[in-house]
Amino acid sequence: MQMPDPDAVLIGRKADIVSKLERLLPADAVISDIAETRAYECDALTAYRCPPLAVVLPGSTEEVAAVLRLCHAEGVPVVPRGAGTSLAGGALPTADSVILGVARMTEVLETDYNNRVIRVETGRTNLSVTGAVEEDGFFYAPDPSSQLACAIAGNIAMNSGGAHCLKYGVTTNNLLGVTMVTMDGTVLELGGAHLDAAGYDLLGLVCGSEGQLGIVTEATLRILPKPEGARPVLMGFSSNEVAGACVSDIIKAGVLPVAIEFMDRPCIRACEAFAKAGYPDCEALLIVEVEGSDAEIDHQLGLIKQIARGHDPVELREAADADEAGRIWLGRKSAFGAMGQINDYICLDGTIPVSELPRVLTRIGSLAAEYGLEVANVFHAGDGNMHPLILFNANTPGELEKAEGLGADILRLCVEVGGCLTGEHGVGVEKRDLMADQYAPADLEAQMAVKDVFDPAWLLNPAKVFPLQVSEARRTARLAAE
Amino acid sequence: MQMPDPDAVLIGRKADIVSKLERLLPADAVISDIAETRAYECDALTAYRCPPLAVVLPGSTEEVAAVLRLCHAEGVPVVPRGAGTSLAGGALPTADSVILGVARMTEVLETDYNNRVIRVETGRTNLSVTGAVEEDGFFYAPDPSSQLACAIAGNIAMNSGGAHCLKYGVTTNNLLGVTMVTMDGTVLELGGAHLDAAGYDLLGLVCGSEGQLGIVTEATLRILPKPEGARPVLMGFSSNEVAGACVSDIIKAGVLPVAIEFMDRPCIRACEAFAKAGYPDCEALLIVEVEGSDAEIDHQLGLIKQIARGHDPVELREAADADEAGRIWLGRKSAFGAMGQINDYICLDGTIPVSELPRVLTRIGSLAAEYGLEVANVFHAGDGNMHPLILFNANTPGELEKAEGLGADILRLCVEVGGCLTGEHGVGVEKRDLMADQYAPADLEAQMAVKDVFDPAWLLNPAKVFPLQVSEARRTARLAAE
Repeated sequence: MQMPDPDAVLIGRKADIVSKLERLLPADAVISDIAETRAYECDALTAYRCPPLAVVLPGSTEEVAAVLRLCHAEGVPVVPRGAGTSLAGGALPTADSVILGVARMTEVLETDYNNRVIRVETGRTNLSVTGAVEEDGFFYAPDPSSQLACAIAGNIAMNSGGAHCLKYGVTTNNLLGVTMVTMDGTVLELGGAHLDAAGYDLLGLVCGSEGQLGIVTEATLRILPKPEGARPVLMGFSSNEVAGACVSDIIKAGVLPVAIEFMDRPCIRACEAFAKAGYPDCEALLIVEVEGSDAEIDHQLGLIKQIARGHDPVELREAADADEAGRIWLGRKSAFGAMGQINDYICLDGTIPVSELPRVLTRIGSLAAEYGLEVANVFHAGDGNMHPLILFNANTPGELEKAEGLGADILRLCVEVGGCLTGEHGVGVEKRDLMADQYAPADLEAQMAVKDVFDPAWLLNPAKVFPLQVSEARRTARLAAE
Repeated sequence: MQMPDPDAVLIGRKADIVSKLERLLPADAVISDIAETRAYECDALTAYRCPPLAVVLPGSTEEVAAVLRLCHAEGVPVVPRGAGTSLAGGALPTADSVILGVARMTEVLETDYNNRVIRVETGRTNLSVTGAVEEDGFFYAPDPSSQLACAIAGNIAMNSGGAHCLKYGVTTNNLLGVTMVTMDGTVLELGGAHLDAAGYDLLGLVCGSEGQLGIVTEATLRILPKPEGARPVLMGFSSNEVAGACVSDIIKAGVLPVAIEFMDRPCIRACEAFAKAGYPDCEALLIVEVEGSDAEIDHQLGLIKQIARGHDPVELREAADADEAGRIWLGRKSAFGAMGQINDYICLDGTIPVSELPRVLTRIGSLAAEYGLEVANVFHAGDGNMHPLILFNANTPGELEKAEGLGADILRLCVEVGGCLTGEHGVGVEKRDLMADQYAPADLEAQMAVKDVFDPAWLLNPAKVFPLQVSEARRTARLAAE
């Protein structure tokens, strides 16, 4: 990937754009000092960096619209940014772009328990949405591992999931309405606090569109009453394949746990060392959690344990109390951090039909051996959303590239078995060139034609989602036609 | 609404198009005889009728593509048709259009219990999807009242719901992938048997787009294991408002029944006369059903009955056995038929935030009195999806128009309280002119711009969804620009 350094033309351009931005926004909402913009030069995909032209931190939908109108008129690309936790480079700047961050827009605008909805500004973090309603017994269901930091804006952009989405669905299933500003500054209201909507489902289209169709400034989210109780059970198995087969059997039996999480040996060890979760020392571990009344939990866990016993588990243990349950989840939720302490890694996000889990885990093992790299697996098994972590040493020249090669092969494998490139992290820059493996030209064309509608000049979150050559060719052709 | 009769120009045009269609399809797949096309002159919104130019009944995606390519080249509008059960005129022809019916495409293409999906041709009826898997203990969740007749194609076009969608979601929550042919004959594959999809969610966009973006020929649907058991409870109340308040309290408490159905006195009487369901003679009735193990059902119904008791029910009765449960549901599911035996009616589909139910029911009563018409209410109360039936006498001149006026006022009321024009029936021709009440010009513009992408000449299912003047102006402008 080429990231040209800012050149002389850019410097003059920058001065002009920054002064215009400063006329639109409060003084502290425009960041142009090169040292300060460095904080925005990457997101959580830290292998790629590029300082932007400037950063703006508007405080309202109106200010967002004003910035977009200006950038639209000036032909300046805009990169939307939530909390910058994207693992796929979804918030990576280009050198000629303005980063538009929603971090200052964090208000709760309305809480309506009668209709079980909350309306928030999208800079608010995922966990603090739950924080705003939990005293009254409610929660917001999607729970990405980064939920302490990640913003609702990014959750919507990537259609984020999380461990408990097996039961509650991902962001799109919990998003009822948005206020979105398109690149030309038009403010749209999509959806609302009601079932469905008349006409086309633009809300569904916008959710997961990676900030390329507009900037979502406010969101109406479904909140749910906290379940009476929840209890995880730990299941250890003698191989990844056996654990995968067990997941497949649970799903097939139609029991609906809130979560089925999977960890293989490298992850189990790292998490145990990090969180003292009480994990058994085995090849593969499942954490299966069910919710409800005590009677319901007992009933469901009974069925689940019966299925697990058919796979000769080396461990089968229900959490005895809330404290043990908390430790079990702390281990899982700190998996990425724990792995990061001992390795550099690339985290993939391929999603496959659940029945393919055993076969795909075996193939990932073989591919890793071919590349001479280690892969640790930790993921949402219930919905087939895999997160292979490819471990490598960033200080060894060529090893990042090797890891990326393995990552691409694993994702192609996911597509080959009927799955897809990404479940919840998005395409970003990371997987843009693999989109041609996922989609036929006509399918890609349909997506890009929709982009044309909302952002004819392709200024919003450029150089992402679509194969770079394809999107650049399209952009050039459109500019020539104007 | 004006529906011009076929004129001389049209007759020559028809002969030409029909002979070209006959070259593409088997002889019995093209219907042009005026007596035979009459069977397709309307859907379930029988107040509007117009015979089409011709009807084609292709047998495969390839044949659908061939027909669309031809019609695209010839500039012939195409009206897609599932089973023709639309209550909103979604399959109403225009005189110059070809009806493309998918009624012959009814095959089950793949059944995959391991991943809990089924792939079917979209002419298959809703109930026969369940029929294909029920022996193995599975079912397809969305259950429109017309499920015996309505086709999956129409369910996708309208994003259909049903009584049990409170728990299981509507079509869009149970649709994983489609094969869709766009107006120019391009075959797209959207989604698949896996969670989410990389890039934009065109699948979500297509679901509910009323056949205006393409013709969906194949669909991958989620199937679910049948619950262990289910039990309805009947609750009778002294007024609509009290019943509405009870619904609101159940939702607020966060209990999740699979269904909360509402009927007012006129409906209760008609259904009881028709189905001998054992309904009490009261002002308002709720049917609340919960599912699961016996223990779970007892637990949940306990909570629900406790809430109901706070509203002084005149009846509170659990179904004692499967037979009684069956009668209770037969009564509800035959509501439209039962009302149809004693009145002409218009069935509305407005959807509101659940907490607004009591207020809106009262306002509907006042509006009906102002118009001098009777309104019967029967609807999915749990998700706020109302189905007021406006009763009138079609033989009394001017009464249909009066009923339509009341309908429009009720739908405007739904929008006013934060709801929308349609939950599951679609906009069709029926509500197209009300879209301007629901949406600001910029919001409508965004939807129409998406239509431009998929069908630049606006040939597919014309004159629907958008206000007629607005869509015609757009179409004319685009033709002039070409």
